[in-house]
Amino acid sequence: MRRLMLFSGTTNPWIASEIADELDIELSKINIHPFANGEIYVRYLESVRGADVFLVQSLSAPVNEALMELLIMIDAAKRASAARIVCVIPHYAYARQDKKSASREPITARLVADLLTAAGADAIMTMDLHTGSIQGFFDLPVNHLTALGVLADYFKGLQRDGVIEDMIVVSPDVGRAKASKKLSELLGCHLAIMHKVRPEHNEAEISHVIGKVEGKTCVVVDDMIDTGGTICNGAEALMKKGAKAVYLGATHGILSDPAFERLGAAPIVECVVTNTIAVDSKRAEANNIKVLSVAPMFARAIKNVHELGSVSELFDPDFQL
Amino acid sequence: MRRLMLFSGTTNPWIASEIADELDIELSKINIHPFANGEIYVRYLESVRGADVFLVQSLSAPVNEALMELLIMIDAAKRASAARIVCVIPHYAYARQDKKSASREPITARLVADLLTAAGADAIMTMDLHTGSIQGFFDLPVNHLTALGVLADYFKGLQRDGVIEDMIVVSPDVGRAKASKKLSELLGCHLAIMHKVRPEHNEAEISHVIGKVEGKTCVVVDDMIDTGGTICNGAEALMKKGAKAVYLGATHGILSDPAFERLGAAPIVECVVTNTIAVDSKRAEANNIKVLSVAPMFARAIKNVHELGSVSELFDPDFQL
Amino acid sequence: MRRLMLFSGTTNPWIASEIADELDIELSKINIHPFANGEIYVRYLESVRGADVFLVQSLSAPVNEALMELLIMIDAAKRASAARIVCVIPHYAYARQDKKSASREPITARLVADLLTAAGADAIMTMDLHTGSIQGFFDLPVNHLTALGVLADYFKGLQRDGVIEDMIVVSPDVGRAKASKKLSELLGCHLAIMHKVRPEHNEAEISHVIGKVEGKTCVVVDDMIDTGGTICNGAEALMKKGAKAVYLGATHGILSDPAFERLGAAPIVECVVTNTIAVDSKRAEANNIKVLSVAPMFARAIKNVHELGSVSELFDPDFQL
Amino acid sequence: MRRLMLFSGTTNPWIASEIADELDIELSKINIHPFANGEIYVRYLESVRGADVFLVQSLSAPVNEALMELLIMIDAAKRASAARIVCVIPHYAYARQDKKSASREPITARLVADLLTAAGADAIMTMDLHTGSIQGFFDLPVNHLTALGVLADYFKGLQRDGVIEDMIVVSPDVGRAKASKKLSELLGCHLAIMHKVRPEHNEAEISHVIGKVEGKTCVVVDDMIDTGGTICNGAEALMKKGAKAVYLGATHGILSDPAFERLGAAPIVECVVTNTIAVDSKRAEANNIKVLSVAPMFARAIKNVHELGSVSELFDPDFQL
Amino acid sequence: MRRLMLFSGTTNPWIASEIADELDIELSKINIHPFANGEIYVRYLESVRGADVFLVQSLSAPVNEALMELLIMIDAAKRASAARIVCVIPHYAYARQDKKSASREPITARLVADLLTAAGADAIMTMDLHTGSIQGFFDLPVNHLTALGVLADYFKGLQRDGVIEDMIVVSPDVGRAKASKKLSELLGCHLAIMHKVRPEHNEAEISHVIGKVEGKTCVVVDDMIDTGGTICNGAEALMKKGAKAVYLGATHGILSDPAFERLGAAPIVECVVTNTIAVDSKRAEANNIKVLSVAPMFARAIKNVHELGSVSELFDPDFQL
Amino acid sequence: MRRLMLFSGTTNPWIASEIADELDIELSKINIHPFANGEIYVRYLESVRGADVFLVQSLSAPVNEALMELLIMIDAAKRASAARIVCVIPHYAYARQDKKSASREPITARLVADLLTAAGADAIMTMDLHTGSIQGFFDLPVNHLTALGVLADYFKGLQRDGVIEDMIVVSPDVGRAKASKKLSELLGCHLAIMHKVRPEHNEAEISHVIGKVEGKTCVVVDDMIDTGGTICNGAEALMKKGAKAVYLGATHGILSDPAFERLGAAPIVECVVTNTIAVDSKRAEANNIKVLSVAPMFARAIKNVHELGSVSELFDPDFQL
Repeated sequence: MRRLMLFSGTTNPWIASEIADELDIELSKINIHPFANGEIYVRYLESVRGADVFLVQSLSAPVNEALMELLIMIDAAKRASAARIVCVIPHYAYARQDKKSASREPITARLVADLLTAAGADAIMTMDLHTGSIQGFFDLPVNHLTALGVLADYFKGLQRDGVIEDMIVVSPDVGRAKASKKLSELLGCHLAIMHKVRPEHNEAEISHVIGKVEGKTCVVVDDMIDTGGTICNGAEALMKKGAKAVYLGATHGILSDPAFERLGAAPIVECVVTNTIAVDSKRAEANNIKVLSVAPMFARAIKNVHELGSVSELFDPDFQL
Repeated sequence: MRRLMLFSGTTNPWIASEIADELDIELSKINIHPFANGEIYVRYLESVRGADVFLVQSLSAPVNEALMELLIMIDAAKRASAARIVCVIPHYAYARQDKKSASREPITARLVADLLTAAGADAIMTMDLHTGSIQGFFDLPVNHLTALGVLADYFKGLQRDGVIEDMIVVSPDVGRAKASKKLSELLGCHLAIMHKVRPEHNEAEISHVIGKVEGKTCVVVDDMIDTGGTICNGAEALMKKGAKAVYLGATHGILSDPAFERLGAAPIVECVVTNTIAVDSKRAEANNIKVLSVAPMFARAIKNVHELGSVSELFDPDFQL
Repeated sequence: MRRLMLFSGTTNPWIASEIADELDIELSKINIHPFANGEIYVRYLESVRGADVFLVQSLSAPVNEALMELLIMIDAAKRASAARIVCVIPHYAYARQDKKSASREPITARLVADLLTAAGADAIMTMDLHTGSIQGFFDLPVNHLTALGVLADYFKGLQRDGVIEDMIVVSPDVGRAKASKKLSELLGCHLAIMHKVRPEHNEAEISHVIGKVEGKTCVVVDDMIDTGGTICNGAEALMKKGAKAVYLGATHGILSDPAFERLGAAPIVECVVTNTIAVDSKRAEANNIKVLSVAPMFARAIKNVHELGSVSELFDPDFQL
Repeated sequence: MRRLMLFSGTTNPWIASEIADELDIELSKINIHPFANGEIYVRYLESVRGADVFLVQSLSAPVNEALMELLIMIDAAKRASAARIVCVIPHYAYARQDKKSASREPITARLVADLLTAAGADAIMTMDLHTGSIQGFFDLPVNHLTALGVLADYFKGLQRDGVIEDMIVVSPDVGRAKASKKLSELLGCHLAIMHKVRPEHNEAEISHVIGKVEGKTCVVVDDMIDTGGTICNGAEALMKKGAKAVYLGATHGILSDPAFERLGAAPIVECVVTNTIAVDSKRAEANNIKVLSVAPMFARAIKNVHELGSVSELFDPDFQL
Repeated sequence: MRRLMLFSGTTNPWIASEIADELDIELSKINIHPFANGEIYVRYLESVRGADVFLVQSLSAPVNEALMELLIMIDAAKRASAARIVCVIPHYAYARQDKKSASREPITARLVADLLTAAGADAIMTMDLHTGSIQGFFDLPVNHLTALGVLADYFKGLQRDGVIEDMIVVSPDVGRAKASKKLSELLGCHLAIMHKVRPEHNEAEISHVIGKVEGKTCVVVDDMIDTGGTICNGAEALMKKGAKAVYLGATHGILSDPAFERLGAAPIVECVVTNTIAVDSKRAEANNIKVLSVAPMFARAIKNVHELGSVSELFDPDFQL
Repeated sequence: MRRLMLFSGTTNPWIASEIADELDIELSKINIHPFANGEIYVRYLESVRGADVFLVQSLSAPVNEALMELLIMIDAAKRASAARIVCVIPHYAYARQDKKSASREPITARLVADLLTAAGADAIMTMDLHTGSIQGFFDLPVNHLTALGVLADYFKGLQRDGVIEDMIVVSPDVGRAKASKKLSELLGCHLAIMHKVRPEHNEAEISHVIGKVEGKTCVVVDDMIDTGGTICNGAEALMKKGAKAVYLGATHGILSDPAFERLGAAPIVECVVTNTIAVDSKRAEANNIKVLSVAPMFARAIKNVHELGSVSELFDPDFQL
């Protein structure tokens, strides 16, 4: 069997390190540093010839630096005769630009796929893409994991412990209705759907809720929380409609400014995200943000990919909940 | 300016003919016929050298014949030195296989894009893709039209004429909630959302409606009606919940068996589709199915593409409602 | 060594099954079924990650369905991380459209090669291509087998048993003269060549024979028998020229309507084809058609490819008689 | 309309010059010269930006020099922003290596197509490819001309002038039977076919003729005459069988040593070739070799391609006799 | 003729604006802005369909943002059916990583070329690449301009005005010896060459000068000045060797920290750079840095490319001094 | 581990044979021969299926024959299912055409890279490319060896033995200053630089030397010696400036006419080259030319590549001195 080598880029070395621990291996050594003018220098400090190289890099802020760093890592690995280059991208960038919603726009999510392919990637492993179809932006095998199970388990725990009663899943908008429905099935509860309406031409947009939330504990889960504006407004609207309490959740805690402030001020019990993106743990704690780890899932998927499916079929990294 | 030539494949010559009429040109001549063993023979009967060639072919049943015919048309045009080959595909096939929803599945919607590109297509013009991201399956320019305006205009007419009162848009499932919301905004009415639930493990699945439909006239619009099972069940469920009347609509009337029977038997006033797919007009009439034409939209888009945007910006074929 | 997995498409599961038997393995499990609208669904029911995947699909009627099915199988195998995808195509479609014989025609045999490559095939195994140059339509390794030996052995057997005396090989037309010459060398007998001539402008075309066939038993072998028109006319012409008896043969028994009727009515002793294409055995028997199996040849070639040439050089699948 | 520019490589400047004369233009200026170590230097001496660039280069001896020179010309034109690069290749090299006839052989005719494409060619114009399928080795438009008409006209002239009587076309071997049949139809005469047989294992191979040639004037036409061995032996065999006289013909007069000697000594009236390859006119004259010009055909085809088919359809360069 | 449209990215709108002025056109309108998480949004505000689109973007700090912005601009232009996309890149990034100088390094200058090509660029226009061979990293036409003439003219002016006497060109290191020699020829003066040596193992590296500089006014020109360390040390060393005065020059004033401080403190009369990279004019003035404009050169090159070489041959943008 | 197979082209079978000896294997068998018309025929005489195939071919005179031969070898290996095809190219052709130095020139060094890639090469191993950036002309892994160590060792030996005293390295022109500096560091001596100047417009060019060479033994090393004009003139100039003696050296002894004559007549003690190019040993000896072997370096690099880096890191074939 080929050697398994795991390298980390600079945006989220913590998850890379956790994955290595789960796999019971050391992270391999690589030199990555910027020059004075901002150009990035990369050099592998160990031979990758003939190895199965897994490059862990979350495409989080600074997004373009992160992407370019990963592309350079791929180029260097290709030129150093790696047998296979698998990009492990816990958070995929530009996923929301997955189609033209106005004329003369790019489809940047496809562009990113093309750049990774042009650089020399052989396979992709990622999690909870904004749209599942982004898998199809690649001609390469894509292992698409989901944190839905991890998030559902967490809320089931709260239910079991009696912390949450009368739970209802509320979709943050019409576009997430399908994913929210899946979560409601996993949690065995009802579904409501929020959406924004503008009653009259000059009036402000307001959040409308289809379905009953009065007296319920609402669980609102999105794929990502960026500045948190929509989801925090949603939480407020739910409380106004008589909800007993609101929990937020998301796979990707992007948490761009002023997300921490908003979440800290929102009428929520807790906001749960995973570690696909590195989160400042102090600010997280101070603002009711809880971080769950998906490193074990990535570790199992990497093991499976490396060992060519000899791992128990109980875990199938291709399977997207 | 280059010559504009319009050729039709065999699946929907009616829309091709209407488009030609709108453009005030003749369809150019092509010989397409099957050999005894089912192989398709294609030959252009006019020189296409240096021309802007538009190939109209709806990828409707028999789907694979239709696709292969189009691919062969592209190959022949490329080898005969056409300057540009634009595939006009009113209905795109395999659009529902746009991601892996289980492991070891194909992403056939991407495969179709790759096949068209490998054959030599230079640009694509299509309508109401099941997922907008399918645009990103192409590295080519894609002009993505929508029939939403045509359908909305029809229902607005009924409203204006007093045929429909107390209208509400009902999404046929959670996956169409976003598109249904757009329609509700165009029609200036409320939105409700249906979804299927299975109350207990061994009970049958039932349609649940989030939002109030009692006493309302429901407009249920999907991107396509295939066998019509889901949408007819939905219509029944809406009537049971006290709806006054139900109208169905869709861009693509695939109408595979037993769609006609189901629609004829469903508690609906009318089902409205467009002519992206050729529909048997007798069976349509006999089963309350009305067909609207989108040929004028395709004609304007073709004109715009051919004349390089010199057409009034009032009509922008890139713009997807 | 990598796992060898053999999957069958739906056009000729019988030869796939025979090949599996020869290899002493089970066919692996795959789900292939059409949707109501004719779109094909494919899913592998076993993991193909890291395996040598052989996909057996004869591109016979319905040709375009068969091709699209194979392309989707390739796409799914690629996305599920198969190590190598070898298409085993006993009968290759569109082989007669291997060049433009009039302007503005396609070269569909090349298009098919490009589609297989675009989908993700890594190698091709096929038999008796209409033109050997079709190998060059691929940038992939092509293992080109021939049934000429199997057919020659059969006729040698008849000679040995005294069933055939005074044998002569007759080429069915000038285009097959080279292959017929090879057969005549294998059988150790003379060669005659038929071709069509039209004596005067308004007279009917007649078969002309260059060489003596009087009193001889003629063996007429083509690469494929489609509707059987030409070859049956040829048989008649040979009998008129005084031939004692006529045997027909071909690798590919396409047998499109009205081939069975024609062959049944033709003045021939027997028509011999192979099982590259599934033949209705009842109709075959009723019309003097004998089917020889080439499954053992494919099995040996697959074994050789899988074991990287460790098999005895006595059998060389690259070698085309 | 784009500027038409015609450049000549070094192998056959005479045909390039004739083509330019026919088009009533000057050959454009280019600097091509070898360095001391054999590397070829190329530089265009006129701007090609935005022009339709036609590069005339026959791939004749020294074949590999000729090919490399053409590839470098293409590269330089591409980098200098030519709008379109059309390779005019009167004689295509490596055409006989169009398939693997033994294992582990290359398919060099396809390789040459790939090299031209990789360098940046946009279209190909060539004449009488050894196999028509070589067209399909390109993904580019190929204009495939034929000299069959020019050769037929010449022999028809001799017939009309009473120089030839009782003409019969004789195919030089079984592989050329189809092309010879076409010629016999054009000339309105019968067809005979030669092939080599080896009567017993240790005896020498002899030329066998299927059909009657006694007392006839035989016209033997091949696509190319290389060293002339086979065709001169054939001429001798025909004379031995009682032929009255033999004429030879070919599109491509490769005439590698010792072709001149052989043709000079052969029992033939005349050998007719075209100027796709530059022929030493003194040696030709001295050995009964007549050279016909195909420059007018190339000139018309270039004009047609450049003017995008506005030329009379009476001449169709796509049409291969 | 196609419309000429000029768009500017965000790194150097000043040179884009100057180029537009020189061309006597307006910059076309485009919306480029970052989202909160750092992803870049791009939308063309005018139709680019069928236009010659020139995208001006200097790949200067922040380098990776600048590159990604340009790639997204290309993608959007391609999908909006621009006829041709020319990237005008006054300063090309990662040019110094043009080969592996240690094992397991990337060749990022090639990677950047591949990314631009993958995104959809049709041609490149740039200036004074660190190595001319970077042109060959592209399969696209590259117009490679040089500021050597602009810099030489400036120094010739000083000579003419008697400001500089006894001028000598000094190469800043052995790698720039060839370019410095060209400059010395343009200025009609002698050449000296500096290089670093380390006399003994533990001693500090010192600048060694080959050639006489005593009493001379030294002109030291490099392709780029990044942090200015090497060149400022060089200036000091020249003064120590008895030089009368030192002028520095470079095409690309990257001027990363602490370049301004170093140049301000260095024993130089003046440092001359061009506006390929936007320079803070206040800090420049305060530190003896003079900025020359190369916008007229780019404008002429763009005009030439757009008008397909109809511009006087006196100016040849392909010509690299 | 895969089988290692080493094949030799025809330009330098001696180095291939030496490499095989070093690896303690036999050269594998291949049939390469020209046809009468100059086309090259290639066939592997042993199965290469699944093997690591190393093809040794120096791209020396006749350069274009050598390149085409290699391309055909690659094509045949690819079609015979070699697992990996590594081109071992001791001398890379067209390396000096690595950029456009005038408009409308090709970049032939990139073209050669593209041709090798198009044919199917998987990796490249070569030595002392004229410009290191040529590595970046490939998207494939390139193992770039250098003979600098071998040459330096030879001169160090002469120093140790007292043959050379007061050594100085002299760069033959400004373009080689950087490489010469590296050599001077390896040899621990000073550096001087020659360059050509033309004192007045109509006077002849003369060699100018920057730095002191009086009384010194000059070592002048270039990457290649072609006709030897420049370097022999340089030697003469150095002697005129008072040098005690001159040694020449180069990795690649191209030695095109009249190199032998020039070197024989030049005022040099010895000229040292390596066996990357086959040299006529008699003429070499007669003209003071010494040939060193780099076969051991290639052998170690091949072993390393084949064994995937399991060889001691003491030798790193990626490392370019």
